[in-house]
Amino acid sequence: MDVGFIGLGAMGLVMARNLCAAGHTVTVYNRTRSKAESLVEHGAKVADAPAEACKGEVVITLLSDDAAVADMVFGSGGVLNALAPDTVHVCMSTISTALGERLTEAHTAAGRAYVSAPVFGRPDAAEAAKLFIVAGGAAAAIARCQPAFDALGQRTFVVGEEPVKANITKISGNFLISAVIESLSEAFTLVRKYDIEPQAYLDLLTSTIFSAPVYKNYGGIIAQEKFDPPGFKLPLGLKDVRLAIAAGDETNTPLPIASLVRDHLVAAMAKGYGELDWSVLGRIAAQNAGLE
Amino acid sequence: MDVGFIGLGAMGLVMARNLCAAGHTVTVYNRTRSKAESLVEHGAKVADAPAEACKGEVVITLLSDDAAVADMVFGSGGVLNALAPDTVHVCMSTISTALGERLTEAHTAAGRAYVSAPVFGRPDAAEAAKLFIVAGGAAAAIARCQPAFDALGQRTFVVGEEPVKANITKISGNFLISAVIESLSEAFTLVRKYDIEPQAYLDLLTSTIFSAPVYKNYGGIIAQEKFDPPGFKLPLGLKDVRLAIAAGDETNTPLPIASLVRDHLVAAMAKGYGELDWSVLGRIAAQNAGLE
Amino acid sequence: MDVGFIGLGAMGLVMARNLCAAGHTVTVYNRTRSKAESLVEHGAKVADAPAEACKGEVVITLLSDDAAVADMVFGSGGVLNALAPDTVHVCMSTISTALGERLTEAHTAAGRAYVSAPVFGRPDAAEAAKLFIVAGGAAAAIARCQPAFDALGQRTFVVGEEPVKANITKISGNFLISAVIESLSEAFTLVRKYDIEPQAYLDLLTSTIFSAPVYKNYGGIIAQEKFDPPGFKLPLGLKDVRLAIAAGDETNTPLPIASLVRDHLVAAMAKGYGELDWSVLGRIAAQNAGLE
Amino acid sequence: MDVGFIGLGAMGLVMARNLCAAGHTVTVYNRTRSKAESLVEHGAKVADAPAEACKGEVVITLLSDDAAVADMVFGSGGVLNALAPDTVHVCMSTISTALGERLTEAHTAAGRAYVSAPVFGRPDAAEAAKLFIVAGGAAAAIARCQPAFDALGQRTFVVGEEPVKANITKISGNFLISAVIESLSEAFTLVRKYDIEPQAYLDLLTSTIFSAPVYKNYGGIIAQEKFDPPGFKLPLGLKDVRLAIAAGDETNTPLPIASLVRDHLVAAMAKGYGELDWSVLGRIAAQNAGLE
Repeated sequence: MDVGFIGLGAMGLVMARNLCAAGHTVTVYNRTRSKAESLVEHGAKVADAPAEACKGEVVITLLSDDAAVADMVFGSGGVLNALAPDTVHVCMSTISTALGERLTEAHTAAGRAYVSAPVFGRPDAAEAAKLFIVAGGAAAAIARCQPAFDALGQRTFVVGEEPVKANITKISGNFLISAVIESLSEAFTLVRKYDIEPQAYLDLLTSTIFSAPVYKNYGGIIAQEKFDPPGFKLPLGLKDVRLAIAAGDETNTPLPIASLVRDHLVAAMAKGYGELDWSVLGRIAAQNAGLE
Repeated sequence: MDVGFIGLGAMGLVMARNLCAAGHTVTVYNRTRSKAESLVEHGAKVADAPAEACKGEVVITLLSDDAAVADMVFGSGGVLNALAPDTVHVCMSTISTALGERLTEAHTAAGRAYVSAPVFGRPDAAEAAKLFIVAGGAAAAIARCQPAFDALGQRTFVVGEEPVKANITKISGNFLISAVIESLSEAFTLVRKYDIEPQAYLDLLTSTIFSAPVYKNYGGIIAQEKFDPPGFKLPLGLKDVRLAIAAGDETNTPLPIASLVRDHLVAAMAKGYGELDWSVLGRIAAQNAGLE
Repeated sequence: MDVGFIGLGAMGLVMARNLCAAGHTVTVYNRTRSKAESLVEHGAKVADAPAEACKGEVVITLLSDDAAVADMVFGSGGVLNALAPDTVHVCMSTISTALGERLTEAHTAAGRAYVSAPVFGRPDAAEAAKLFIVAGGAAAAIARCQPAFDALGQRTFVVGEEPVKANITKISGNFLISAVIESLSEAFTLVRKYDIEPQAYLDLLTSTIFSAPVYKNYGGIIAQEKFDPPGFKLPLGLKDVRLAIAAGDETNTPLPIASLVRDHLVAAMAKGYGELDWSVLGRIAAQNAGLE
Repeated sequence: MDVGFIGLGAMGLVMARNLCAAGHTVTVYNRTRSKAESLVEHGAKVADAPAEACKGEVVITLLSDDAAVADMVFGSGGVLNALAPDTVHVCMSTISTALGERLTEAHTAAGRAYVSAPVFGRPDAAEAAKLFIVAGGAAAAIARCQPAFDALGQRTFVVGEEPVKANITKISGNFLISAVIESLSEAFTLVRKYDIEPQAYLDLLTSTIFSAPVYKNYGGIIAQEKFDPPGFKLPLGLKDVRLAIAAGDETNTPLPIASLVRDHLVAAMAKGYGELDWSVLGRIAAQNAGLE
């Protein structure tokens, strides 16, 4: 399949490489061109402008936040104007539901196909092509993307015709992860006060009722206090919790746990932990209990 | 093995029956004698007074809360005075760390063996002898209890020589469950606002990063709004969250998520949901967003 | 003095009238022209376009929110381009610190004088020219505005040369009011459970340590449950609490009480109380305790 | 009037002295006798046992917490047994509503008069006999106490025949103070981030809508960061916030601001601030924003 890929951050680079490895014809674009060129040896073609990546069957955009996506899509020389009539635009970023709605409306008005397809999984899952893909959009458009999705993830979940449903699924999923991190942070702090070794405690939890990967992964980081190097940086986590709150704002839905986590993440930013993994919430909880 | 069993509530009844089924000699005591008598057909011997259940190798107490445990252990004719020199007292209730410490000190002063061994698992797990047992106490004492534990659970985790470590492990575990329930309640409410069907959403979550039983069980209840019949009644859940806060009080550990959950559980009590499952937090979250 | 006045909402209308009454030459502009015309009998001159109000010694803008202010100032035909070299632009709206900074920079770049001067006081205080004015800006510019301020308020507080200091003072002041409303809401709910009559309780409080007007005013509304007609509508209150949170975001300052109040205001929106006074938080607290 | 006074802490000592100064016949009892003896020069008579202070027209108890009150009243040789038939027992401690109810029932059963009369005011108000007294009990019993109250406070508020109404008024009043302290702490932190000097900011607030003494007193302490010497120690403040939460528990009333304040006070305890004024919440807020 002929696929464009715009946005080669940590995740994007690995995912574009997986598309190449799966035998697709991949045209990549990145603002910093050197990252794009690193994919030439894997068979990718480097585009000089975003428009060149928008002429195949599918173009994937994977940019860091709302502002970057809006710029790339709506700016002059951007994706929306450049899209060929039959090219499906797949937005894989975690973006606000408000931008999700705006993207849907704009593509519809322009007579272009749009799929929202954010992913669950940390960098190692992207590397192994084991991401979970959550797709929202017209069935035919999603079907067109499936070969690309198969090269990137272990499974695709179709959540409906409205692309925004994929956005809110991703946003609320990350909110749930944040609740896991915060609650583990508090629990570890409490048991440390009773002289229980955090890793042994975590092993007990994950051998019993908390056997999900998210408990093992984040629990391990917090138990070992290994917030560096980050798998998912604090500012990204804070951005995502804010997206959950914003989605609540759009629909008058209070999310008190999100508010609480947000405040702790802001405290972590204030203390200078912006380069660490967002599970540094574990350190905040410990400090609030007089530890460290 | 010769085992006493004091306290035949919903869980205790099933567990005592499993001890009988495993071939142990079981002497049961319950304040309301009729419940004890229902076990005669399974081979149990009914005690007229608690003291009669305290003469075997092990006596298990499983009472509803701190007050009931303190009464049964420290009251006149209670367990502590009645314990034979070689009988191990195993307290399987979820009790405060303060009472846990007091029990340890009292048994030590009296020269008696004491093991704290609360369990994880809802009634169906008790029925199937699939509980997880968390044991704290002297290694020799725990070893003495092992045949009984094997008849009740699928696995025993030894957390150390200090019995209170078992209490705090159980308390903090239940706190983590409460955080799962509250965060799912908020997430379901949010996605409902975006016209996503809760059960489909839950299936996606539990097929991916939230694959733990606790998400499946409680998520299913909340998605279906099946808070009746309760697996674990609201007042019991509220009691346990208060135990977490009390354990934090003992050690100057703030637990902001516990505080938040507590307030929502109190609101649920105020609204008359005291006979429902504690996951009725899902209804509270929905109401706070104007649903229902 | 020759004064322009742009934005004739509930507060603006009364304030412009007070400027007329004080003998100033007042040129008024409002998008809905009829409101402006109602001031003709008080001596005001009606402008056909905002620019006509920007030629005197001072032009006051009093618009509802960030978007309205940005439109009016930066839009084509807007205030910034229209300002005469010697005219001071006084922004009296409650706006974000981010927009406050942007306004400062833009006026500086254009070589124009800018003063930020939000006010404290409900409509009756505006009527009586008893507002408190919080002014930030160059001393000379503020001095130029003083005659207008004297016609509007009982006292002007100068907070410094940086206009944003006036914004944050107003925003944080409103945040403090929101904390008063929420805490009174909770306290009234609690004492009602003990059969204490709220108004008698309030009289005791305001006769002793809580003698400030804000306790009397809002306490009276909550005690009497008179949320209609609103003095300050729920969505405006929610907007202001969000401004506090946003100001915290700009500077990595967690404001947990603001987060909590925000969530309760959002719940009130969800329940359809958007036309009521923001002290309807009192009803939310009562409902959460099973009252009403 | 013939008055007994039991409990000579910081407040009690000053209050007993004021009773002497007003010309009453005062019999004082304190566990540590030396404190009682310091009042001899003011005309007080020192009792060897509590019972000796229970024979006049009124006996006031002012002990530190629930446990101390219960001990003194219900213990052997305690107040309840010692009370002469016509002596009114006035409990001026801030105690739980649960103990308040228990005291009422016990005195009624014993045919003795009981008045609950906690006070508002910090030590300097006690010194100046400017306390506010909140009295609950039978009208005749309160009338009997009035001469003593007049020697201690500037005004007595009668809240009804049920003594517990005085307890809940005091508890909820202290809760409101805690909300003032926490909200000021957050507001000061925010404005400091915008380079506003806290004391100037406070002067503005207290000159306008926050003119109550509680804002001036606590605001001044926080602005100056003068948490030492304490006017009201952190553990006492934490005790009182817990009493509010407990009163909510008794009646199924969630108090989310109390929960939030509680967690911050616990964090302050964990950080070793137990000897400081409870307004050290100001330091906690600053630390959470990366200041200091």
